[in-house]
Amino acid sequence: MRVAILAHDRFPDRAKTALGVLRYTDDEVVAVLDRAEAGRRVADFVSDVQDAPVVAGMDDLEAADVDALLIGIAPIGGGFEESWRTDVRTALESGCDVIAGLHYFLSEDEEFARLADENDCELRDVRRPPEDLTVSDGVAGEVDAEVVLTVGTDCSVGKMTVSMELARDAREAGYDAAVIPTGQTGIMIEGWGTPIDRVVSDFTAGAVEEMIVEKGQEYDYLFVEGQGSIVHPAYSAVTCGILHGAMPDALVLCHRAGRDAIHGYESFPIPPISTCVDLYDRLAQPICEGTVVAGALNTAGLEDESARAAVESYAEDLDAPATDVIRAGTEDVLEVLL
Amino acid sequence: MRVAILAHDRFPDRAKTALGVLRYTDDEVVAVLDRAEAGRRVADFVSDVQDAPVVAGMDDLEAADVDALLIGIAPIGGGFEESWRTDVRTALESGCDVIAGLHYFLSEDEEFARLADENDCELRDVRRPPEDLTVSDGVAGEVDAEVVLTVGTDCSVGKMTVSMELARDAREAGYDAAVIPTGQTGIMIEGWGTPIDRVVSDFTAGAVEEMIVEKGQEYDYLFVEGQGSIVHPAYSAVTCGILHGAMPDALVLCHRAGRDAIHGYESFPIPPISTCVDLYDRLAQPICEGTVVAGALNTAGLEDESARAAVESYAEDLDAPATDVIRAGTEDVLEVLL
Repeated sequence: MRVAILAHDRFPDRAKTALGVLRYTDDEVVAVLDRAEAGRRVADFVSDVQDAPVVAGMDDLEAADVDALLIGIAPIGGGFEESWRTDVRTALESGCDVIAGLHYFLSEDEEFARLADENDCELRDVRRPPEDLTVSDGVAGEVDAEVVLTVGTDCSVGKMTVSMELARDAREAGYDAAVIPTGQTGIMIEGWGTPIDRVVSDFTAGAVEEMIVEKGQEYDYLFVEGQGSIVHPAYSAVTCGILHGAMPDALVLCHRAGRDAIHGYESFPIPPISTCVDLYDRLAQPICEGTVVAGALNTAGLEDESARAAVESYAEDLDAPATDVIRAGTEDVLEVLL
Repeated sequence: MRVAILAHDRFPDRAKTALGVLRYTDDEVVAVLDRAEAGRRVADFVSDVQDAPVVAGMDDLEAADVDALLIGIAPIGGGFEESWRTDVRTALESGCDVIAGLHYFLSEDEEFARLADENDCELRDVRRPPEDLTVSDGVAGEVDAEVVLTVGTDCSVGKMTVSMELARDAREAGYDAAVIPTGQTGIMIEGWGTPIDRVVSDFTAGAVEEMIVEKGQEYDYLFVEGQGSIVHPAYSAVTCGILHGAMPDALVLCHRAGRDAIHGYESFPIPPISTCVDLYDRLAQPICEGTVVAGALNTAGLEDESARAAVESYAEDLDAPATDVIRAGTEDVLEVLL
């Protein structure tokens, strides 16, 4: 599939979904839409992802060259910005599907629904959970597959990236491994998954369990994309539901170097790493055998030497192997997981 | 308000909502509907709640005597049983409101919606959360009110009952205290509240916070009805979201004497009481100052002497005061809370 990614005014630093897709998708990215950076290329900003031209809008692309337009940014609150309407309209009029992970569902927008219908193309709201979810049966622990869950000290510390890197490298090493996507970016990359933060709270564990049970029959290793943090004042419910729904055999604790308070909730300090490890281990224990066996530190922004020192110190705090998966690969961590 | 409570074939042992309402409502219960026990009285089964006749159906009541029909039972899955349709129809035709806490929303039933409209009465689905919920701001800890949360070792151990008893006795002792209802029975009794198990998982803490912030201005003590258990394989997400959203100053751990495994999930043993206390304390600690300071043991079914011994032993396990609120009152526990 050939996709264009909308990331107006936010590429690359505030376009987490666009970057995730550029890094991991098997699809061909024909362009990034960012009117503020039109004329440049992805490679001008980020070196280790798929390259593509940056254009001002859908009008700059040949309709025949694009199968889908993907909304690659999410404003706070997950709304739809009216300044994107022209691009979505142009895409639909030329028969392109449109894929979005917003809280605002494009398929409930009257104009978009009509255009999609008229032009026989699809509006895919990946953040809309399936309607047949239910409570957990408590059986994820029974699958044969080894289940690895990424957990975090906070949001936006790299749980999705770590899950993707671990699964990819495990596959390259000959293991039969898959990612279990639980958030909009992971779902866009993998083309399936359930947006756990949008399900009815009673069904949080059940929605994860359903994916584990289904994929546990097909694969030997499942890398579950975690969400939030168990010490997050707003999102810990989602984190807890994923932990108990997935019933992992092993946890990888993700952290961002230098972050010492919950992002956006700065009056809540992140506890010492050893306290976070202890809390995840104790919370998992009544439900499954998983404990934190490895760590992943996001050292973006640090010089190489500082990054190396930070990872070493993080491994000491964890009393377990650690890495920055982007800078230093996954070898040391996969060794304890596979 | 004069209410009739529907509890067909399940009164009293499998009618948790009906019993909760009979015990705590300020409304007058004119009858319980149970076709299997018609002709008897509530007092024939339960002695310490409001008494009322048990009748076979709405046809046995004078329409003018009833303001609302309340669905007081919930089958597994929360569906609507078609055998109740006649009673709901009769109620609506005689201008009675109908109040339900089912997952199946009566207001989305075509016949009921039409009848309610024609007869100018209301269908109140208390399990339908408000539509304007959002993520937590992390501010429940800032309210002046003292916040007490009931937590549990499992579902159905008495968290709602304990919250109601503590708040009522605190009020009788002259304190300005309210219950924060988080489940359908509590909401039916109090006439307001948010069904936390039905909100979008990302909004779990936020939905609780909103209630705490609102009522924290009006009252000196808030008794928050907890849900589920942090060691429950299916419902722990809801428990965790309530804990972090309410940011309590104190926790009361509820347990049912003799229960040693999660009800309905018997392969999951309930950890030792001291482990449960430790887990709640550690999970609360990064977010708020609350710890488990007291316990409530449900000794229903035990002889008096065994019950007393069980409560004593439970207090020892907790290393804190404990009581059975129904058998022995709340005095010892309120002493450490107020």
